Amino acid sequence: MRFLDASEDGFERAFERVVRDRRESDTSVARDVTTMLNEVRQRGDDALVEYTMRFDEHRLTDEADWRVDLATCEGAYAELDPELREALDLAAARIRAFHEGQLPADRDYTDEVGMRLGSRWRAVEAAGLYVPGGRAAYPSSLLMNAIPAKVAGVERLVVTTPTPKGEINSLVLAAAHIAGVDEIWRVGGAQAVGAMAYGTGRIAKVDVIAGPGNAWVAEAKRQLYGVVGIDMVAGPSEILVIADADNDPEWIAADLLSQAEHDPTSQSILITDDKGFARMVEDAVDLQLMNLPTAKTARTSWDTHGLIVMVDRIEDAVPLADRLAAEHVELAVADPQVLFDRLRHAGSVFLGRHTPEAVGDYLAGPNHVLPTGRRARFASGLSVLDFLKRTSFIAASESALAAIGPAAIRLAEAEGLPAHAKSVSLRLS
Amino acid sequence: MRFLDASEDGFERAFERVVRDRRESDTSVARDVTTMLNEVRQRGDDALVEYTMRFDEHRLTDEADWRVDLATCEGAYAELDPELREALDLAAARIRAFHEGQLPADRDYTDEVGMRLGSRWRAVEAAGLYVPGGRAAYPSSLLMNAIPAKVAGVERLVVTTPTPKGEINSLVLAAAHIAGVDEIWRVGGAQAVGAMAYGTGRIAKVDVIAGPGNAWVAEAKRQLYGVVGIDMVAGPSEILVIADADNDPEWIAADLLSQAEHDPTSQSILITDDKGFARMVEDAVDLQLMNLPTAKTARTSWDTHGLIVMVDRIEDAVPLADRLAAEHVELAVADPQVLFDRLRHAGSVFLGRHTPEAVGDYLAGPNHVLPTGRRARFASGLSVLDFLKRTSFIAASESALAAIGPAAIRLAEAEGLPAHAKSVSLRLS
Repeated sequence: MRFLDASEDGFERAFERVVRDRRESDTSVARDVTTMLNEVRQRGDDALVEYTMRFDEHRLTDEADWRVDLATCEGAYAELDPELREALDLAAARIRAFHEGQLPADRDYTDEVGMRLGSRWRAVEAAGLYVPGGRAAYPSSLLMNAIPAKVAGVERLVVTTPTPKGEINSLVLAAAHIAGVDEIWRVGGAQAVGAMAYGTGRIAKVDVIAGPGNAWVAEAKRQLYGVVGIDMVAGPSEILVIADADNDPEWIAADLLSQAEHDPTSQSILITDDKGFARMVEDAVDLQLMNLPTAKTARTSWDTHGLIVMVDRIEDAVPLADRLAAEHVELAVADPQVLFDRLRHAGSVFLGRHTPEAVGDYLAGPNHVLPTGRRARFASGLSVLDFLKRTSFIAASESALAAIGPAAIRLAEAEGLPAHAKSVSLRLS
Repeated sequence: MRFLDASEDGFERAFERVVRDRRESDTSVARDVTTMLNEVRQRGDDALVEYTMRFDEHRLTDEADWRVDLATCEGAYAELDPELREALDLAAARIRAFHEGQLPADRDYTDEVGMRLGSRWRAVEAAGLYVPGGRAAYPSSLLMNAIPAKVAGVERLVVTTPTPKGEINSLVLAAAHIAGVDEIWRVGGAQAVGAMAYGTGRIAKVDVIAGPGNAWVAEAKRQLYGVVGIDMVAGPSEILVIADADNDPEWIAADLLSQAEHDPTSQSILITDDKGFARMVEDAVDLQLMNLPTAKTARTSWDTHGLIVMVDRIEDAVPLADRLAAEHVELAVADPQVLFDRLRHAGSVFLGRHTPEAVGDYLAGPNHVLPTGRRARFASGLSVLDFLKRTSFIAASESALAAIGPAAIRLAEAEGLPAHAKSVSLRLS
């Protein structure tokens, strides 16, 4: 953990280094991924069989090796511990409710010259979700990715997930049942992303691919951007907690660790205006780490990327927060709205002392798939918009064309596009 | 030009080949672009000076070599032919009005358990527009890219454009004045895109990059996706005209040629239910080509990529149109709404016999930057949303956290994330 004081010399340079360090490895997997995508594109299912044997030690032979049937998902749901089932159902219902409110309105109006103009939103036909296997196989992640697609109206929702040595996470299957996933393929890695983008003999191609994954999966999505739509380029996760001295240091320490336990590359940052409070949080983190089952990961993250920044007044945290443009920002102060009104760049904001980031991870309602690595400067969290596309439309009456057509002709001529001009002028004479 | 009849054997296979052919060259410029971007990232302005000398024969020395000042743009506007100035002003006003209607509403509500939830849209701080030099330097393109950024509220709008041997298009400068562009840099190619994404000594970096360009520019944007936001991956342009026999074949021929004159790789497709009409359009195209100043380009496009498809009934055109997912779709029939209601995938639709696509290119209002190469299956035209990002927020009261916190704890425990669980449970006790 590092400690920076905004009033000290050298702060600006040190803080700028933090801003610039996206904690994303530059070791390129690009070439490997290019090869794998080409293999999948050209050899389809045969390439999937080979890669799945090599990377997952799982043999794709019979239908049951390839796919998990939907009855198995229903079974996994039925067998859940009732309290856990209730929690998953509550999460799904709350996520669904929030995302239903995102559905955008169509436009259709006639303007003052009699031109009918508008735009219409429609869902993509098919979406693919990548679901990691192993440590990062989270049912909450499946719900957060799948529900917006279904709320958008996607008819065919495909999941690909690696099943190392055949193993599969039954919580994820139960979540797939709740979310209404249509197909589950036991294929992972860059090869699964390629299969969804290009299609193979068995797996029909999709239009949009979302979902988290390792460096190979992320690079495959990046390379396929434009062949399909993708949700975003995701990097290591981060939290920024802005907290004054009136907080319980234990609570704030737990919030910082809830980010740190995700991954060694996660980053937890506290900005506070009270040095004594900062020290108490630091001590609380150390104490909690002693009993935390995920301490190995969390300690590596906190030691390597953890940061406490001292500011003179708590409102001085806002410009620093804008530069960090963090994925998650907690405003643990008495009147968080004052700070929130001034903040511009953040993935998601958690207001007040009783809003730990973890409620947003599971069931507050807003999506937990958020821009990382300072991308909140230009990107947004996952939403139904990622599974919709907009078609604009124009309808000119004869008189509307007469009103604005001459200007179009002038512009077409000025741009040296005579057929453009002619397509209008023929209709005016 | 090819002719396909949907009732003949082999149609399905031939049509599918058209659908799959995006007319995008696979000859990779990726490696060159990677090198250029690395050079710009590491050597900044020095790399720009070298590339600009090499590719544009333009020496970047004094401030005036680097930048066009805004007074020059204002001068270019003042010196315009008055009718042309009026046409540009009308186009800008209509584009602005349409895009103002795209500004999304923020959300802020408290749900039944007392949880405050919502989302807030804010503009990115800085956007960069690439404006091609030479043949494709269009003032309309500048307006279509710049106005949505300014309507979104972008404070710093940067244009980069190559000025081969120092030459610059005064129409583009006039359009920059109208649109309120803040900086114009005389740099082009992949190096300009790299400069906007990474920043150099002279050019401060931006958050989003939009605008058309050649294969190098397109590849640079693709590679920088995730470092900055980008508008889209654009390919060759296309038009699909669905027209019955009651149209004037001259009008339809002009519409097909208005697309063909853009570029040899453009594609114009007519679907009709009347063979005699198809022949008349074909003849009209040939006749118009004889007197068209842009005939060289238009003829190459029409000969190479032009297509006429015969269907039995005009409504049979709709499923074919959905497979093509064309950038521009004209519905030149008496009741276009019937076809439009069934159509799902298109960039922009032009309804009725009096709506040539060219009015949309210039001043109908909707954006002319649209998804190409079948990407309308998942992508939308440029809009103010490309220059905005959304921050979600959550505020739990004590009682709201008490209501849903226990379920969050259960889910966190099931996912093996104990610090997540603790950050909630500490606040409940």
